[in-house]
Amino acid sequence: MNVAIYDTTLRDGTQREGISLSLADKLKVTRLLDTLGVTYIEGGWPGSNPKDAAYFEAVQSIELKHSRIAAFGSTCRKNGDPATDPNIIALVDAKTPVVTVVGKTSMLHVTDVLQTTAEENLRMIRESLRYLKSLGKEVIYDAEHFFDGIKLDFEYALETIGAAIEGGADVVVLCDTNGGSLPWEIARFIYDVQKAFPNIKLGIHTHNDGELAVANSLAAVQAGAIQVQGTINGYGERCGNANLCSIIPDLELKMGYKCLPNIESLRTLTTLSRTVAEIANLSPDNHLAYVGKSAFAHKGGIHVAAIRRNVDSYQHIDPTLVGNEMRILVSDLSGQGNLLSKAEQFGMSVSKAEAVSVLDEIKRLENEGFVFEGAEASVAIRLHRAAPNYKPIFTLVDFTVLVSERNGFALSQAMVKIDVDGDIVHTAADGNGPVNALDLALRKALIPRYPQLADFQLADYKVRIPDSNNGTAATTRVLIDTQNHHTRWSTVGAGANIIQASWLALVDSVEYGLVIAPREVQSSPAVMSSS
Amino acid sequence: MNVAIYDTTLRDGTQREGISLSLADKLKVTRLLDTLGVTYIEGGWPGSNPKDAAYFEAVQSIELKHSRIAAFGSTCRKNGDPATDPNIIALVDAKTPVVTVVGKTSMLHVTDVLQTTAEENLRMIRESLRYLKSLGKEVIYDAEHFFDGIKLDFEYALETIGAAIEGGADVVVLCDTNGGSLPWEIARFIYDVQKAFPNIKLGIHTHNDGELAVANSLAAVQAGAIQVQGTINGYGERCGNANLCSIIPDLELKMGYKCLPNIESLRTLTTLSRTVAEIANLSPDNHLAYVGKSAFAHKGGIHVAAIRRNVDSYQHIDPTLVGNEMRILVSDLSGQGNLLSKAEQFGMSVSKAEAVSVLDEIKRLENEGFVFEGAEASVAIRLHRAAPNYKPIFTLVDFTVLVSERNGFALSQAMVKIDVDGDIVHTAADGNGPVNALDLALRKALIPRYPQLADFQLADYKVRIPDSNNGTAATTRVLIDTQNHHTRWSTVGAGANIIQASWLALVDSVEYGLVIAPREVQSSPAVMSSS
Repeated sequence: MNVAIYDTTLRDGTQREGISLSLADKLKVTRLLDTLGVTYIEGGWPGSNPKDAAYFEAVQSIELKHSRIAAFGSTCRKNGDPATDPNIIALVDAKTPVVTVVGKTSMLHVTDVLQTTAEENLRMIRESLRYLKSLGKEVIYDAEHFFDGIKLDFEYALETIGAAIEGGADVVVLCDTNGGSLPWEIARFIYDVQKAFPNIKLGIHTHNDGELAVANSLAAVQAGAIQVQGTINGYGERCGNANLCSIIPDLELKMGYKCLPNIESLRTLTTLSRTVAEIANLSPDNHLAYVGKSAFAHKGGIHVAAIRRNVDSYQHIDPTLVGNEMRILVSDLSGQGNLLSKAEQFGMSVSKAEAVSVLDEIKRLENEGFVFEGAEASVAIRLHRAAPNYKPIFTLVDFTVLVSERNGFALSQAMVKIDVDGDIVHTAADGNGPVNALDLALRKALIPRYPQLADFQLADYKVRIPDSNNGTAATTRVLIDTQNHHTRWSTVGAGANIIQASWLALVDSVEYGLVIAPREVQSSPAVMSSS
Repeated sequence: MNVAIYDTTLRDGTQREGISLSLADKLKVTRLLDTLGVTYIEGGWPGSNPKDAAYFEAVQSIELKHSRIAAFGSTCRKNGDPATDPNIIALVDAKTPVVTVVGKTSMLHVTDVLQTTAEENLRMIRESLRYLKSLGKEVIYDAEHFFDGIKLDFEYALETIGAAIEGGADVVVLCDTNGGSLPWEIARFIYDVQKAFPNIKLGIHTHNDGELAVANSLAAVQAGAIQVQGTINGYGERCGNANLCSIIPDLELKMGYKCLPNIESLRTLTTLSRTVAEIANLSPDNHLAYVGKSAFAHKGGIHVAAIRRNVDSYQHIDPTLVGNEMRILVSDLSGQGNLLSKAEQFGMSVSKAEAVSVLDEIKRLENEGFVFEGAEASVAIRLHRAAPNYKPIFTLVDFTVLVSERNGFALSQAMVKIDVDGDIVHTAADGNGPVNALDLALRKALIPRYPQLADFQLADYKVRIPDSNNGTAATTRVLIDTQNHHTRWSTVGAGANIIQASWLALVDSVEYGLVIAPREVQSSPAVMSSS
């Protein structure tokens, strides 16, 4: 059976706090969604937003293989004619094959928000749709607050659906706008609608306020819905919209529905998810179902041993079906096998003896407070350093960091002296803090030889005292995330001294970024590779 | 109807990458869970981990109002006697009223992972449980991979449940270990188990690999499960465990089940969620259902206008029921109220005007990167400082910190100049790191007047960069835990400079420890109070 996927990342998804997409961003996402093969791409609300009008202009020149573009808008205003309503005119001007019109279901909203009558609301729905159908559009009707409305006034909620059908709606989408419904409520009301209107084609639009948006969407499909609306990564207002990155594989791989043109395109899902996160300037959520970096990561020794014996023993699907990969986390629990498969992943050839020596080093360092689990780049760089022909990029001679404060004014400076291929380079820098100053002084020393360092950004910095019995005299662990335009990697340092620990993590970060990260990009050119 | 909540944040939750909790962290979470009122708190796996054994020792001296502590472990080894099995012995040595034993359901795991026979697996389950029951324990049986196992071999899966019942299991928990099941599959197999064993008490343990863990838990309860296992914020391996912060309000507020001792304690849920995130040193997810900072935030102009007309038009529940708040209506009144009750808790009398000025200060500081949720001592000390007759213990004149490294040898020194009652005291100290040196120099200056400072210990130290777009130049937030022989408290500092941020947290810590902590001890002498 077929289910049409209706993506609203570009409209409802951008309601999430902090997301703001440029026109170029929106066109990029459009192409990626078309490659995945969703049926509809809702591009925006032309009546509310001049940027969205520019999108609909630009998207006409993009050739799409699978997807149809939809423009979103509300019904005409109360007591108004659709043909002269500015919002409806903007919808028509978007020149899309599909228009999606949202209208009120709930008497609460008719009286308190629209401040009009039950009858007038029905007319607004019916006439808006009829006008748009008369122009030859495919018309989708979004019944806002449907599930709250039908609980409040069963008869009236069905009358609004009746008005949409009279207006000629091709599909009626039942919306759980406030996101608080339960799966069995969704199913029950869908049956009620189908009973009242036997030939209706239904869609579902849910929000995640009860952490049930995916389940509610699947329940609707089971009850007969043939269209699912949602967003990439579940982006959206409050707790987000239904997450298509979970719904699509749930439907395709577990429930036997067909919602993409071919199962092969499902392999682009992980890249799509992470690319949309990057475009939206949000950190990818590593724990997302199917597409998260940790979705198929295994840590415990028992799990890893079991996976060696049978790859399916601890994973619910083959991760490559959605373009993801299994990851074995290196920690003091792990064996040589873990390290050898890690080396393969980074495109290194490592002998068994080298793997053993790195494993010993990792175990010793973990005893001293390092944790390599979140810091795969520090593992990779140790494998790299174990090679017999290894030459370091530089060696430290000494550094000094000075922080002072007087009258609320703080000053942080660092001096770094390093040996680069026999040349002693001595630099100094101010920073907003001691680690920033140290980072800047080190870059200053290296950038003449490695200008690509200018593209490295310190993206996150975490510090913990793992053993909490010695107070500030205890071991300090530092985890640094660095990114450039292609990839992002994590390194770890530890020691009694936070500056020293940060230095170790910075050194790993710089060496990984200069030596290993470029290989990673080469080995998977199309995909933004993760560390 | 009642549902028992079984929290496994301290065991399964810590399987999430990057989470590592100290003993003090685990005890803090235990107290918070007891305040919420979960029925069971699973503290760890004593057989696998010496740190967990220390937890079970320490937790015995904590008086819990609602929760029972459970220790987790696997069945005895193949061909072994439970009474002499090291893992079972460790379980018994944990001295908990409840033990939870995990065993294999799936023939795939019996043959490929345990590498034993169907019969021997049944014996391991039956005899392990029987032995633990003979010692008077409440015994919960976790049927690992139950839903995958029953799909693979229906009869054998039921036989393993039968073995657990013969062994005397009080509750049998069906686990969706790989997290890939669908809600109707969960319900169907629960009916099958109930049909085979009509008097069985069932629990459910799900993972979020299909983004359905919450829905699967609710489906199980609808089908008759009387226990739900999960974690705070859904922390856990891969895509996480079932999120109790969604399940508890779904059950209590939408489905009419009772799972907490009283509905009032549900109001602690949001604070619990965010405090656990801070303790785990993870950024709180703003988009979590119910407890996220954005869960009741309204952005769209229409929404906000509608909310002004009718507060229920765009929210699915009253956010105060879970201790959260709507974000557009910043409620100064509720804020003041919170602060006034906080003041009572610390035995201070604070006027309304003082509370307002502290609230303003806190809002301003949170804008600058402070987070007061995990740092109640910093709130208390601000209330203290707002009193008209307030006199500081000392004021800073200046400090300087110097860190240098050469040949792997690091040197950290600090100079501190403070004004104590008009006397300028100038001290210097070495430390293992810059913050340690600063701490020691400050103590050196104060100990002649406040000898009790010698008893203060810095117990934990956490650093985050909350906004991860500016790298090391971004705001740094420091959270410090300090303890003496009576109590433990947390303070926060923030700023561009890690040393400056640490200084602010240290100053709060010293002042709280000298002035407020002694009052707290008087009011609750026996318990190590949490901050």
